Amino acid sequence: MWQLLKKWGTNFSSRHPGFWRFVSSVPFLRRLFNRVFINLISNSTKPRPHPFSLWGPKATAATPIGSASANYVSWTGLVDRTYTGRHLPAADQSYVDALPAPEKLRALFQRQQLTPCPKSTALFGFFAQWFTDSFLRTDPNDYRKNTSNHEIDLCQIYGLNAADTKILRSGTGGLLRSEMIDGNEYPSRLFGDDGLVKPEFLDLKYVVRATRDLNPDLFTNQPFANTPERKRNLFVSGLERGNSTIFYSAISTIFLREHNRLCREMHKRHPDWDDDRLFETARNTNIVELLKIIVEDYINHLSTALFRVYVDPGFADAQRWYRTNRIAAEFDLLYRWHPLAPTDFTLDTTLPNEEFRYNNALLFKYGIEKIFDEGSKQHAGRIMLHNTPPFLLDAEVAALQKARYWRLQSYNAYRECFDLKPMSSFEELTGDKALAAELKALYGKVDNVEFTVGLLAEQRPANAVLGETMMFMVGADAFSQALTSPLLANVIYCEDCFSDVGMEAIEATSAFADIVRRNTKSTIGKVSFDI
Amino acid sequence: MWQLLKKWGTNFSSRHPGFWRFVSSVPFLRRLFNRVFINLISNSTKPRPHPFSLWGPKATAATPIGSASANYVSWTGLVDRTYTGRHLPAADQSYVDALPAPEKLRALFQRQQLTPCPKSTALFGFFAQWFTDSFLRTDPNDYRKNTSNHEIDLCQIYGLNAADTKILRSGTGGLLRSEMIDGNEYPSRLFGDDGLVKPEFLDLKYVVRATRDLNPDLFTNQPFANTPERKRNLFVSGLERGNSTIFYSAISTIFLREHNRLCREMHKRHPDWDDDRLFETARNTNIVELLKIIVEDYINHLSTALFRVYVDPGFADAQRWYRTNRIAAEFDLLYRWHPLAPTDFTLDTTLPNEEFRYNNALLFKYGIEKIFDEGSKQHAGRIMLHNTPPFLLDAEVAALQKARYWRLQSYNAYRECFDLKPMSSFEELTGDKALAAELKALYGKVDNVEFTVGLLAEQRPANAVLGETMMFMVGADAFSQALTSPLLANVIYCEDCFSDVGMEAIEATSAFADIVRRNTKSTIGKVSFDI
Repeated sequence: MWQLLKKWGTNFSSRHPGFWRFVSSVPFLRRLFNRVFINLISNSTKPRPHPFSLWGPKATAATPIGSASANYVSWTGLVDRTYTGRHLPAADQSYVDALPAPEKLRALFQRQQLTPCPKSTALFGFFAQWFTDSFLRTDPNDYRKNTSNHEIDLCQIYGLNAADTKILRSGTGGLLRSEMIDGNEYPSRLFGDDGLVKPEFLDLKYVVRATRDLNPDLFTNQPFANTPERKRNLFVSGLERGNSTIFYSAISTIFLREHNRLCREMHKRHPDWDDDRLFETARNTNIVELLKIIVEDYINHLSTALFRVYVDPGFADAQRWYRTNRIAAEFDLLYRWHPLAPTDFTLDTTLPNEEFRYNNALLFKYGIEKIFDEGSKQHAGRIMLHNTPPFLLDAEVAALQKARYWRLQSYNAYRECFDLKPMSSFEELTGDKALAAELKALYGKVDNVEFTVGLLAEQRPANAVLGETMMFMVGADAFSQALTSPLLANVIYCEDCFSDVGMEAIEATSAFADIVRRNTKSTIGKVSFDI
Repeated sequence: MWQLLKKWGTNFSSRHPGFWRFVSSVPFLRRLFNRVFINLISNSTKPRPHPFSLWGPKATAATPIGSASANYVSWTGLVDRTYTGRHLPAADQSYVDALPAPEKLRALFQRQQLTPCPKSTALFGFFAQWFTDSFLRTDPNDYRKNTSNHEIDLCQIYGLNAADTKILRSGTGGLLRSEMIDGNEYPSRLFGDDGLVKPEFLDLKYVVRATRDLNPDLFTNQPFANTPERKRNLFVSGLERGNSTIFYSAISTIFLREHNRLCREMHKRHPDWDDDRLFETARNTNIVELLKIIVEDYINHLSTALFRVYVDPGFADAQRWYRTNRIAAEFDLLYRWHPLAPTDFTLDTTLPNEEFRYNNALLFKYGIEKIFDEGSKQHAGRIMLHNTPPFLLDAEVAALQKARYWRLQSYNAYRECFDLKPMSSFEELTGDKALAAELKALYGKVDNVEFTVGLLAEQRPANAVLGETMMFMVGADAFSQALTSPLLANVIYCEDCFSDVGMEAIEATSAFADIVRRNTKSTIGKVSFDI
């Protein structure tokens, strides 16, 4: 009954444009439907706290890898968020052991030729990577744990902790450290002309770690980019992967410019404010601008609904799902949208991935304006099987391995967890005979299909970026962890928190393009997640 | 209107015993009134998150002490709970500067002769100290910060972090380390026969700190107790003050015995469970037993209502005040119930405070049974001005200093914050001419009376342990932070989490006496918070 209603609602919301235009034009109705819509998604599974997490004895050579997640409730597992959360308890080891070896699934992911997403731009794909990188942060030294702040906090430019934040600040006027290159503002460069990390950045946690582990690759992650010319142009960043693509660098640059722009405006109107107050007030504002972009641009792009959701501060406080944030293992794994990444990217000439990764020189050469314009005209890949670019195939295999380590339950078990009818056949799942046969050969029964594979295999209409299960799972974890930001709370969201300057900037921000246009040249072309 | 209703409700709840007996005898009504009552108290002020915390620039020799709390909103202040929370923003420095010097207020607190509390036993007072010591934990090196877990987690016996917990465990059968002395189980002793900390305890965080700071007093806090005989009998504990009175030691001993009792029972029924599972399941159970004691015994003792509240698992989840816990500065300071402490305590002979503090030998000599029996027959002091025992006067002055440092607003400002009518005169506040005159001489206007002094000065009926403002403030912070325990959440509170053994123990626990009787000799006499 509830499941049918959900299906009907999903269908209805993507049709009847006249009805939705009317609803959106009446403030009272718009607000009501916004609340109903967000609540329906957020309540599609049980709210936090969940009984289980990845807490459990650490895997050792002597214990099987699957023992990492305990099958009983522990206090540490409940309250210590450095252990990643989980929606469902661990699967039986026998289920995990019967799955095909991750390496055997490589071909299932492999892209022969890019299948373009009919809806999303390449910019959208790179924005998704930039965004999720800030809170999906498995601890590389202990897969049970994470280094996430469990908040949307723009740690990409502010860092993960107070000590790093202080290093990233200039110390005057509230500004973040930046430098002018050909008349444009960018984050300061990490390395000096001598090829060494600049003294002022030596105490950043990730720099300390790279130095201690003698792992200079940490900044570039890829030997191909570990050259003096590439390193010279790496930006200092809040996160270790802050230069991973030219888009990652460009998006961080936009938010850094917005921060510094806000500080300069605030200083003009409040000349008595000190460095700390300017910094904090601009940061509050910048974070809420990002939250608005996520809800009103990013999520609406992903949704098939014709009704566009919006940020309604103070609404979330009173909802049942307003709970302490905690990133779940499933959220981490379902967000491996590697197929979004194009195989190559065109800027005058066609650039292979090695050229658009860790290569900020392109920003100086072409300018952020052109890069965003091109990124808004070229397609992202469609999120599906057989569409992962070659350079991310190792990451897919590693993600599958992680899912086994975490003993995630099957795709169908998660459908039930989100109150959706389990798939009864491979055909129902895929809507594609060839793919159904391929999956059947691998898994035997549809109930055996593993979580991440099932999500990518889901059939969907052409206008849907994501399948049904993915949409509910992303939506529930996104709304219930973005709208819980303390900055949106009823008693906090007000001019006192953002200043007059900040309030105006927040009101003027709904799409990513808004913040880009404020911080680039007037010659800028297209900036959009939609093709 | 709302204020009048509140007053009427408070009055009504303490009269009409027939009505309340009837309500309590009908399960549906009992449940309804329990929910209404808890919601009324918990909603008496705005729910968390609050815009301000103690976050701000650290006071230095060059900056005035009051600058510690910023008067603008910061991200770190909102999310970093190592900074203590606050209900109201910082007062103007001018208000703080005009207050009488803390040292001048010493006489206002000083007890000449104990004014007994007509309702509370000495046991209650010592229990309150033991209880609050676990979550009201200002960082002694930085008053803006705390070392609290912000949860009721029995850290008195389990420690504040996973590393300490491991040290406190025996490593087999889920048990905590203990030793038998004259046939009774006690926590292991911290020092060996050689007068040195035992090797197995050297890595406890507070031992490391004491060693590093060359501060052996850390364990005894008082030079008078820093003798070889006293030290020999100190117990290892989860917290550095774990031996501060014989009651503190005795209460921790009871919870340790309960933990080990639960482990032994669970092992009998589940012989296949390993050390970790036994430990975690017993700990979950023990924490919920404490939560039940807090709500059903401790809070009901404090309340003047004839209706007795109870723990109704799964109810809190759906309430507006179900938010991430965060200890507030005001909660920390209002809980300085020093007048509860008796000046001396009688066990055969009258013992001065130096004898009943840091002196576990008395436990072995008299037995926990006799100590609890005597503690349940002797009076606590009444929580009021002019009733702090001499050995705690320095602590009162220090608390006043802390309130200045934190720039707490006035008592009347907090009445408004909790939706109570501000006091219009010293007489209305105190109901006592002499005290009114004394306060007037110190503060001039009733609006100037500071927070902690106002709370202690409040007039109240003889059956009320606390004044009105104190009651609402304690109640709101207690209910909204105890009932948010993940262990009480709808999806977590079940036999899976506690086992059959645990579930039976939880059901058999409502008062502190219940857990005491299960873990002491059958000869035990009175165990009660009520005289």
